[in-house]
Amino acid sequence: MAKELVFGHQNPDTDAIAAAIAASYYLNEKGMDTEAVALGKPNDETNFALNYFGVDALRVITKADTKEVVLVDHNETAQSVANIDDVTVTHVFDHHKIDFKTSAPLFYHAEALGSTSTILYEFFKKDGIEIPTKIAGLMLSALISDTLLLKSPTTTDVDRDVIGKLAKIAGVDDVNDFGLDLLKAGTDLSKKTEKELIDGDAKTFKLAGKTFRIGQVNTVDIPSVLARKDALKVAIEAENASEGFNGFLFVITDILNSNSKALYFGEDSSKVAAAFQKELVDNLIDLPGVVSRKKQVVPPLTDSFK
Amino acid sequence: MAKELVFGHQNPDTDAIAAAIAASYYLNEKGMDTEAVALGKPNDETNFALNYFGVDALRVITKADTKEVVLVDHNETAQSVANIDDVTVTHVFDHHKIDFKTSAPLFYHAEALGSTSTILYEFFKKDGIEIPTKIAGLMLSALISDTLLLKSPTTTDVDRDVIGKLAKIAGVDDVNDFGLDLLKAGTDLSKKTEKELIDGDAKTFKLAGKTFRIGQVNTVDIPSVLARKDALKVAIEAENASEGFNGFLFVITDILNSNSKALYFGEDSSKVAAAFQKELVDNLIDLPGVVSRKKQVVPPLTDSFK
Repeated sequence: MAKELVFGHQNPDTDAIAAAIAASYYLNEKGMDTEAVALGKPNDETNFALNYFGVDALRVITKADTKEVVLVDHNETAQSVANIDDVTVTHVFDHHKIDFKTSAPLFYHAEALGSTSTILYEFFKKDGIEIPTKIAGLMLSALISDTLLLKSPTTTDVDRDVIGKLAKIAGVDDVNDFGLDLLKAGTDLSKKTEKELIDGDAKTFKLAGKTFRIGQVNTVDIPSVLARKDALKVAIEAENASEGFNGFLFVITDILNSNSKALYFGEDSSKVAAAFQKELVDNLIDLPGVVSRKKQVVPPLTDSFK
Repeated sequence: MAKELVFGHQNPDTDAIAAAIAASYYLNEKGMDTEAVALGKPNDETNFALNYFGVDALRVITKADTKEVVLVDHNETAQSVANIDDVTVTHVFDHHKIDFKTSAPLFYHAEALGSTSTILYEFFKKDGIEIPTKIAGLMLSALISDTLLLKSPTTTDVDRDVIGKLAKIAGVDDVNDFGLDLLKAGTDLSKKTEKELIDGDAKTFKLAGKTFRIGQVNTVDIPSVLARKDALKVAIEAENASEGFNGFLFVITDILNSNSKALYFGEDSSKVAAAFQKELVDNLIDLPGVVSRKKQVVPPLTDSFK
């Protein structure tokens, strides 16, 4: 029989990949028979982590070919496999807001911690299961990635504690050095097309019955991204039209100074501006102090569309 | 400031009450400031447990007067406080199917174990927090109640393990004797009106956009309940009309022989019958081997209405 599949969200980031690998290993140690897979190719940052710790990239799927699946780092249908409604979810490990519905009880653990990998560390610890060095390295990378080296407001005391423990298991002596190298590996945007930029980390959200897309890129130089605004506009408007998105918010985050600016193209722009109590000027909105889509972008947007 | 409220579902059963008390104690030990409350008065079985272990009944509320709340033993809006959409859920401990939506991340732990109290036992254990004798007694009662003394198909190996541990802490020497006394305390239906019978443990479910009510009574004598069928029909049809239920399934469960019969009044009766691959004869459906609403009634109904 095919192994039960374990996967993170579409457009996987480092946590989606690392948490799938860690959860699959953890569940197999608990007696299950699972395989970690991914819903897309690793991004540059994740490739840096995979290479650094000597782990192969995961098999990429778009549809689950097993009856039962495990979700990590997401729970919403729109972010999952194409046939999510036809399979049974047996476990969820996640740290996002919840929009989830099943017809039978299951294992579901969510916690507002910095990364899903942080949550999985706690499960390994609770059950006394040792984390292999390479997997600890990926989990460390995921924690660094999701919390921007503990600078994101999503960071909790648990993350601040777990980061050192994972670094020790992974054999990483200087977390700060390693973390900056990891984050910077994801910020070389010059070789990417506009379509790659907007699609890279984008997720779909349902707000008041409409479909919105929210993308985010990390950079150390916001102006060089904004210099491509006209071409980004063309790419986003083309995607809104072809995919039926009612709007697209493209968040450009300065990982060194912990600020963002965002471009918005689509309907209800006044509601988008109101969400952040800001003006939208030439489709641009200033988001000082904003680095977390999950904590600082999605909740105010959700409230504004209520 | 008012304490954060912790509560189980409307029409509370023993697990809804015990889990609220246990979760509130657990969270307070973890540094929170919470109060366990109930969304209704305790039933006869729960009263037996409260008296046996010397615990006062909880304060009854219908609306939460705090901004933040903790849900135990339920997650669906229709089973919660009237103003659930206006408050923030910070934690959920549950063992039911999920139909849940939030705008921000939170702590959510669900597991397909026999009772929410079983899940809470695992949290006490993980964190090395001692369970007070009286609370262990209530948690034991809840585990017995929800699993019908480990006979329900919802029973897991974890429940079989935890029941003995809770009994030991609670000072209950003969779990079987205590359990039968507890379950029988909930089966004296002779003094109840038909309205009390159908309302006692009833929960509301949304199926294919319609609203269905599913009630359940435990008994040692199904025929004596069915002898009141005409009066039950009047009570159920009156409630369907006044509350706008599209249908009402009233499950009568023989706790000694682990069988049920159910009365159904409402729309889509063919879909209800199809859910159980049975005929509905004079509004009566035979459900041999069925004791668990959660595992043997709601999932097939949900699938049949898809």
